[in-house]
Order: sequence, then structure tokens, then C-alpha cells
Amino acid sequence: MKTVEEQLRIIAKGVSILVDEDELRNKLTEFIQNNRPLIIKLGLDPSAPDIHLGHAVVLRKIKQMQDLGHEAVIIIGDFTGKIGDPSGKSKGRNALTDEQVRENARTYFEQIFKVLDKKKTTVRYNSEWLSKLNFEDVLRLAATTTVARMMERDDFQNRFTNNIPIGIHEFFYPLMQAYDSIELNADIELGGTDQTFNILMGRTLQKTMGQSQQVAMFMPLLEGLDGVEKMSKSLENYIGVYESAKVMFKKVMEVPDELILKYFELATDEHPDRIEAIRQELVQGKNPRDIKYALAEIITSLYHTEQEVIEAKEYYDKAFIKKAIPDQIPELAVKAQSHLVEIIPLLVENGFIKSNSEFRRLVQQNGVQLNQHKLKHIDSILLYGDVLKIGKKRFVKIIWEG
Amino acid sequence: MKTVEEQLRIIAKGVSILVDEDELRNKLTEFIQNNRPLIIKLGLDPSAPDIHLGHAVVLRKIKQMQDLGHEAVIIIGDFTGKIGDPSGKSKGRNALTDEQVRENARTYFEQIFKVLDKKKTTVRYNSEWLSKLNFEDVLRLAATTTVARMMERDDFQNRFTNNIPIGIHEFFYPLMQAYDSIELNADIELGGTDQTFNILMGRTLQKTMGQSQQVAMFMPLLEGLDGVEKMSKSLENYIGVYESAKVMFKKVMEVPDELILKYFELATDEHPDRIEAIRQELVQGKNPRDIKYALAEIITSLYHTEQEVIEAKEYYDKAFIKKAIPDQIPELAVKAQSHLVEIIPLLVENGFIKSNSEFRRLVQQNGVQLNQHKLKHIDSILLYGDVLKIGKKRFVKIIWEG
Repeated sequence: MKTVEEQLRIIAKGVSILVDEDELRNKLTEFIQNNRPLIIKLGLDPSAPDIHLGHAVVLRKIKQMQDLGHEAVIIIGDFTGKIGDPSGKSKGRNALTDEQVRENARTYFEQIFKVLDKKKTTVRYNSEWLSKLNFEDVLRLAATTTVARMMERDDFQNRFTNNIPIGIHEFFYPLMQAYDSIELNADIELGGTDQTFNILMGRTLQKTMGQSQQVAMFMPLLEGLDGVEKMSKSLENYIGVYESAKVMFKKVMEVPDELILKYFELATDEHPDRIEAIRQELVQGKNPRDIKYALAEIITSLYHTEQEVIEAKEYYDKAFIKKAIPDQIPELAVKAQSHLVEIIPLLVENGFIKSNSEFRRLVQQNGVQLNQHKLKHIDSILLYGDVLKIGKKRFVKIIWEG
Repeated sequence: MKTVEEQLRIIAKGVSILVDEDELRNKLTEFIQNNRPLIIKLGLDPSAPDIHLGHAVVLRKIKQMQDLGHEAVIIIGDFTGKIGDPSGKSKGRNALTDEQVRENARTYFEQIFKVLDKKKTTVRYNSEWLSKLNFEDVLRLAATTTVARMMERDDFQNRFTNNIPIGIHEFFYPLMQAYDSIELNADIELGGTDQTFNILMGRTLQKTMGQSQQVAMFMPLLEGLDGVEKMSKSLENYIGVYESAKVMFKKVMEVPDELILKYFELATDEHPDRIEAIRQELVQGKNPRDIKYALAEIITSLYHTEQEVIEAKEYYDKAFIKKAIPDQIPELAVKAQSHLVEIIPLLVENGFIKSNSEFRRLVQQNGVQLNQHKLKHIDSILLYGDVLKIGKKRFVKIIWEG
């Protein structure tokens, strides 16, 4: 079994906020002394999106703790899900039936167990205990906190200040989540930084109820392939855990260089020492593309078999490196010192594109490459021999006229 | 059956705020058309104080409506009472047992049925429906209102502004009271003006739930015998409904003249025409003492038998009028044009009082009379033949010296 400090180092890797380290150290010391695994809580919404590497950040962190000997409990918030929005105001929050909740949960599990260790994971539905609370129990729960405390939550504060209604029932969502921690006697709860208030509420409630307070662990948000926005399905900047090895490998290769280290920290289970070594390599000028290739291999391996990874690499090498540019491509003669924007009429004239506007749209959608790099500025200066790739199949090589 | 407008006049007598008159008119019209009595709701706290005429203001108003053909439902808030203060912070709000609640309620009933018509009164305990609500029901109830709305209640607003904690459970007290109105399908709810927020919440909830909104009827506070403070047991300025006819009669005779009309309005069931006639008599200079005598007879009759009232009057006449001043009383010779304050040393010297300070204390406690009126100003000018009554038994007549 690893030492307390070694466990602490692995657990703290990539974590945004840890509340607090001393408590975690004490819990780990007890774990080693009594061989009682820590109970790690993760609450999941049963609205069942496809899980991508952004969602997987907390799951990977749990997996790392499972590898250290701890136990995970996944809470499916079916109680809240079944109620929907009791004010009836939000159309998006319709009540789900038992059947729907169970079906969504099944889809979820198929995905989360691509990350978590099934043997060290329990799944519980919070309706199990929450549906049993009566009015008196609810009042006792409500009495554990105050209006002022609730108003510390940013969204409540903002809405109150801006006269946007806050339903009284909304105060119960943090309280319900906190109550789940009581039921589990949770040692650690994880979440994104957007979960700060709710997870800290669990600590408060545990203290009120005489339990040892859970350590709160907040993970940073992972930016998607655009390098700017949080990874999300709707922005199409995501890498889904259920995607094929080929797609996954290729997508990791599209991660912006600046995010390589962050992806190593949050999307892999690599040891902090390894990550430090990679940081050194980057500092010393090693080609980011080679490091990213290693990253793609590691991430793909986390979700696919060895054979699938080999095939994904072969496919990538063939499609995107070796044959990235066809042997024979048409040439376009332009004036030396042309800016790209100046030759658009020539591109239209010669049938490479249909119109000026089509070309601009393709550029905006990152559908144009200049020498295998995304074209960002439409008035880049063209050099002799530059290769433009327009859309998926159209190539053109720039030469000087005359 | 009385006409709508006549009923409205009787019901509105003495009411501080009525929300709103048109709705009440409609309800009364329906009552007359369909012979469906209106359901009048009154919530009572099971903490069981002795009821005095101040508490009886709402009860008398209900009695007047019962006489018009309507039905009262008394809600005993045992659910709240049994929970006590779930935050455990207020020592005054310990949880009551079922037994205590029932015992308190019994004491209460003995007193309220000295006012209300038992045949037209139903008593219900709100634990009957509130204890059956589960978490989901509670969330639906909570969703009917907003934090901003709750903050309109003065005490919440003040506490929030002054950083005095408000427990989340406290938001449920108005909601529970409102839910009681739903359960009853109440047509009218009565309360003191301090109940404004809670009773109006009932209207809101009924509207949300698709019920006809209850009319809210707020009664003014009744000042006690000191003419200044709200009648209350702790201030000893009260007339209890359980006091003997003799005590009650005598206490009504101590009501300050300025409050005669208010007592007629709020502490009797007299018709508005009669009250208007009395107002005219007062304006025309009729001796307030005679009108008060009639008031004392009316109020005492509301709580005692005819025979008891006769005996009370006889007792009062004998003890406080006919023998108000003994035949033989000692005389004290003072300088003409003396102020009372100037003769205090003489009063001490002659053994009428023990000390200057005793006299001043007695004056403060209304224990000194000058010619059968309470002495208010210690520097009143004394006239020849004035009779001072000091405490219960000491009399002294003022004469001029020399």
C-alpha cells in the first residue's frame, strides 16, 4: 500500500480546490491504519448525456483513488429527476418516470464503467432515502441552514439581486445533495467547480449531524478541441468515451498544443512524475506533435483494446500523416507576395471553390488548411510551394505566375 | 336571512383591513342564493394562554358571522407545535407531546366556546393533513412561492438586512398556514394585523391551486386598561374571559373613556346602528361613566348569566360608588392654592403615607385617586373639600388651614 504522502500526491494531481488537505491526510492515515477504504461520493444527474472526456475528469480521479484502494459510491439523483420542476415553469425539467430514470441510468453505467472499477463501485438511487422523508424530517433538514447561507450561492445571489424569482423549493437541491452525504457517511465528494456550494453544504450538514466532514474536491473544467470553450457536445468540441479508437486518436491529435499538459493531468491516469517529465520535454523544445501522439495513444488505450489502439494508430498514420497530401495535386499560379484573400477570385475561377462566401465560411468552420495547419487568417501571405487543403478533398499548390 | 349589504355591514364593523370587499360581497351573494354557509377559518396556537378580551376580538367577529349563518373552523396548529423549533436554537419552542397539545387544546376550548357557537364550529388539527405530506409534496408546496415574496414579510426582511439568521424551515410556517386554507377550502380567514403576510399567503396558494381565494380579515389590536399597550396578561392590563362577573364588571369600568367606542366595536356584538347611537351620545356630552356602565353590563353579560351580572352590578355599586368614600374621613389642613406635590411632607408627617417615594410609586401605579378619578399629575392644584384616596383604604379630605 502506498504511503499517505504518495497517495495525497496522486489524489491532488490536477485538482482545482481541495477542502482541505489536512483532513484528507488524516483520513488517509486512518485508512492505512485500519484498512477502511475511504468512501468517495459522486452525484450524477440522470438526464443521461453521452459521456465525454470532460465528464470523465471526475471519473478518472475516482478511478485513481480506487486504484489506491478506496471505494466509490455513485448517487443517481432519481428523486429530483422524478419530481422534475415542481413549479411547472421550466419545460426542460419534466418529471421522469421510474422507467426512464432506470433506462437513462443503464446508458450511463455502460459509459462510466469504461472508467471506473466496477468491483469498487456501488450505485445508489437517492429516492431510496429521500422519498421516505416526511414533512417533519424536511423541516429538520431545512432548519440546519439559513437564508443568508443559501444566498452565498452565486446564482441565488445574482437572481435575488436582479429580481429573478427563486422558488423556495430550489433551496432544497443543495440540501438534498448534502443529505445524500449523510446517508453515505461520505469521506470525499467530487465535482466540478460549479458544484462548490452544494458540496460544501454536505460538509456543513455532516458537521451538524455529528459526522466527520467529507473532503471536498473540485476538478477544473476541461476545454474542448477548440481550446477555448468547456468541452461539450453541443459545441462539437468533444471527445466521447464511446467513440471508436480511430476517431478518438484522431481527435486527441487535434488538441491545441497549449492543452497537452492539462489533458495529461485531467484525461489520463499518468503519475505526477511522468507529467512533470513531459512538462520538462515541452520546455526543452520537444515537438509537441510527438508528445501529443503519446497522449493520443494513452487516452485511446484507456477506452479501447490494445489491438484497437494499434489499428487506430495505423489508420491515423496512413490517413493523416503519410497521405496527408496526395502525390499529384493541381497547381495555381499567383503573383509572388500575394495575400490569400487576394487569390480568392482565382480559386473561384479555377473551380476550387464555388464562391467567395463559400471560402470564407469554410475558413470560419476551420475547413481550410495551409500546409496541414488550420488556416486562421484569411490574409496570410502565400509562399511558393504552399499547399492549401479546402474542405476534405480539394488540394491546391501555390506556384508563382510567369 | 339578512341581505348581503346588511351582512356586509355587520361583518365589516371594527375590521381594520378587508381584502377585499367585492369578493366578500360575491361570496355572501352566493351564500344567500345557494344557502351554502361560508367557511371561516381561524388558526390558533396550541400554547394555551388564558384568553382575554384582546384575544376575543377575532372570536367575537366569528360569532357575529355565525349568527348570520356561517360556519367556523378552528385550526389547532398541533403539527408545528409538535415539531417545536427544529433548529433547536429557541428554548421557548420545545416540542410538545400529543398529550400536551390535546390538554392545551382542551383548556382553550373551554374558553373559546364562551364566545363561539359550538353548533357552528368545527375543530381540526393540522397534523391531520400536514403529517401526511412527503418530501415530494413539500417541494411542490415550496415551489408555489419565491424567496423574494417571503422577504416581503417584515420580520424576515428586517432579520435578513440586520444579518440575523433566518432558518430555511421558517419559510414553511406561512406555507403551512396557507396549506390549511387549501385543506378547508376556506372562504374567510381572520387574524390580527400581525398575521397579514401569512393570511395573504393563503390567498396566493388558493389561487395557485385553483381555489376561490379566501377573504382576508384583519382585526385591530385592542388596548388594555392602561389605554396604551396592547392587552396582555404580562402587562396586567387585561380582562380575562374567565374572570368572575364582579371582576369583569369592575375592570370594564376602568377602561379609559377614549376607548369606550373601540370596546363597543371590538369587545361586544352590538349592531353598528347601536354603536353609532352611542357615538352620538358621547359627542352630545353624555357622561362617559354612564355609557361605560352600559358597556360593562353588555360585556359581562356576554360571559356570565343574568343573575351573575345583577350581582356584579350590585357589588360594584356598593363597593365602588355608594361607599366609594367613607362617611367619616380624616382632614388635612393645607394652604389655599397648594399643589399636591407640596403637601407630600404633610402627608408623611400625619401618617397617611410612609415616605415621599412611596407616594410617588403609588401615583405611578394609579393607586391614588382625587375625587374618585385616577390621579395623573402630581402637581395638581388642590381645592377645598378635595378627597384623596391613597392605596385601597386611606382617605384624606383637604381643608384650608387657619
